[in-house]
Amino acid sequence: MSLVPTTGELGPVVVIGAGLIGASIGMALTAAGERVHLVDASNVHAVVASGLGAGLIDFPQTETIRLVVVATPPSAVVQEVLEALELSPQAVVTDVSSVKGRVLDKLRATGADISRYVGSHPMAGSQFAGPLTASGELFVDRTWVVCPRLDNAPEHVERVRQLARTCGARLVEMEAADHDEAVARVSHVPQLMSSLTAGNLRDVPDRHLQLAGQGVRDVTRIAASDPVLWRQIIQANSSAIRLELEGIRRDLDELFVVLDDPTGLEGFMARGREGARTLPGKHGSIPVEWEAVVIEIPDTPGALAHLFADIGSEGVNVEDLSIEHGSTREVGYLSVQVSPSQAKHLREVMVEKGWRLRVV
Amino acid sequence: MSLVPTTGELGPVVVIGAGLIGASIGMALTAAGERVHLVDASNVHAVVASGLGAGLIDFPQTETIRLVVVATPPSAVVQEVLEALELSPQAVVTDVSSVKGRVLDKLRATGADISRYVGSHPMAGSQFAGPLTASGELFVDRTWVVCPRLDNAPEHVERVRQLARTCGARLVEMEAADHDEAVARVSHVPQLMSSLTAGNLRDVPDRHLQLAGQGVRDVTRIAASDPVLWRQIIQANSSAIRLELEGIRRDLDELFVVLDDPTGLEGFMARGREGARTLPGKHGSIPVEWEAVVIEIPDTPGALAHLFADIGSEGVNVEDLSIEHGSTREVGYLSVQVSPSQAKHLREVMVEKGWRLRVV
Repeated sequence: MSLVPTTGELGPVVVIGAGLIGASIGMALTAAGERVHLVDASNVHAVVASGLGAGLIDFPQTETIRLVVVATPPSAVVQEVLEALELSPQAVVTDVSSVKGRVLDKLRATGADISRYVGSHPMAGSQFAGPLTASGELFVDRTWVVCPRLDNAPEHVERVRQLARTCGARLVEMEAADHDEAVARVSHVPQLMSSLTAGNLRDVPDRHLQLAGQGVRDVTRIAASDPVLWRQIIQANSSAIRLELEGIRRDLDELFVVLDDPTGLEGFMARGREGARTLPGKHGSIPVEWEAVVIEIPDTPGALAHLFADIGSEGVNVEDLSIEHGSTREVGYLSVQVSPSQAKHLREVMVEKGWRLRVV
Repeated sequence: MSLVPTTGELGPVVVIGAGLIGASIGMALTAAGERVHLVDASNVHAVVASGLGAGLIDFPQTETIRLVVVATPPSAVVQEVLEALELSPQAVVTDVSSVKGRVLDKLRATGADISRYVGSHPMAGSQFAGPLTASGELFVDRTWVVCPRLDNAPEHVERVRQLARTCGARLVEMEAADHDEAVARVSHVPQLMSSLTAGNLRDVPDRHLQLAGQGVRDVTRIAASDPVLWRQIIQANSSAIRLELEGIRRDLDELFVVLDDPTGLEGFMARGREGARTLPGKHGSIPVEWEAVVIEIPDTPGALAHLFADIGSEGVNVEDLSIEHGSTREVGYLSVQVSPSQAKHLREVMVEKGWRLRVV
């Protein structure tokens, strides 16, 4: 037992489960000056995580513990949360599992007082991987969902919010059921579709596999994830997932119908493009809107090189480029996407240099 | 008409279609000293491609042309190949479209002499994009499939092989039907699965989309591809694709059955992982086999840091790391994957430094 006073505001924190997520939380909190204690069924994991700076492998006096983070595989979460609530009477207890509703239902079904439990879900990595790849930066700018309830004291919810903020994460608050519907759609069903696609590659002969390009690799990358972990996640959220998969099956049936129908097939592909474009910019940031500056391309060899040179010499950041056609095929325009703050300047300079602009 | 003598072995080459693929071929051949002439229905594309160094926009004397590369959108390929065969009596004519069987069937159905036509498929980029992103390096280390036939003269096939080699590509030879079955499996069906998954995101509200991570982005990335181009590709290969999709539908039906069955669901996920692992290393290279050096981790804090330091000081490239457990949970091993040529040296040095190895 250690009795060293805490240096941070959150601790002493106990992290149960020193895998990738638990060890990374320990490293982030330790780096922030919090006192972290690690517990793992595997002594090796705890020793490795501690060696990486994720915390101490002793255990604090239970009455002093202010926060317990349960970061075990999903199947062990309910039991660990219940034990932590009982063992640490002053502690707020949170977990990091990917599905929130079923954990909550099972906790409620025990009849225990769970008002000090506040579920959360840091959306990074995979809980099952060991601590070797852990990093205190794992959650920086990643989404961390916290699921407050009416029976939680506001200061208890705040302690879990503080955990997410201390790890550098972007905080999102949602009810457990809403969270589970969201991850069914944007995480669990895409995972299953990746597995479905990859499973079909098993019987493909090597001479065919050698034609595989980046596309199939991207689609099937997450299919290489741990089957045991994912079986637990999918099962815990199977009702929401089943609903979404029924939509997928309807669309697949529709695909069989339109496979030889140009208009229908193009509509299917276009809906896919529309869906892919709904995803916000990386890490959930809002996509920036660019402004187009459209310049006529003179019909002479070498003109484009001069045009590029003139744009480049202005030091504007060109975000995207495309060629547009005029009403006849003989006139072309270069459409340059730049930030709105740079667009006006670029237009003025290009006109000064003798280029013709098209009014957008 | 130009009559400048050719500097390379392949030319004069005519590239029909100055989009991404055509312009990139033109740039690679021009850089290799070949004389390239560009033709595009859009004068703007031809001018832009020429300005980027993809070739000349005049047209050579037709009797001198030795190679015609048809790089138009798929729907125009058959007509362009027929015209090129008729117009250029000395030329070998190839195309770069993604499906080879239907082009061949349609060419044969015309009754024309197509013995100077040798189909090919450089597996890079998307034919529909304009020339702005073209690069002479686009095909370096990418797969380029050539489909020779018994009615082709060997020297004509060799000219198309030479085209692929000059562009720096990795040459693969297959029959048209075999090629089409291969791309149905490793390209077209994954494309459709990506579109299917992405299409389902259209009605997902923003508050759910904000939870999207890297996984769904990877799975749906290629769904953002051009629907018009992909409609043409899928249609041209619909028979092979339909067969593969029937397997997918059976597996999806099976998924509904096992969704709440732990063993069945884990089997489904495991088959996905197995499939994902069948894909060869990036760019079709053969995956290197690593050799494991397994070192006991002493059960003391800080030991792992010393272990890492000792491995690092030997300058070996560590390809992968994992922790393994002994027969009891109290003993752990660090498994270090290194190249076979470095494994023996690392083992000797680690023993010298006092670490205990486990015999693999």
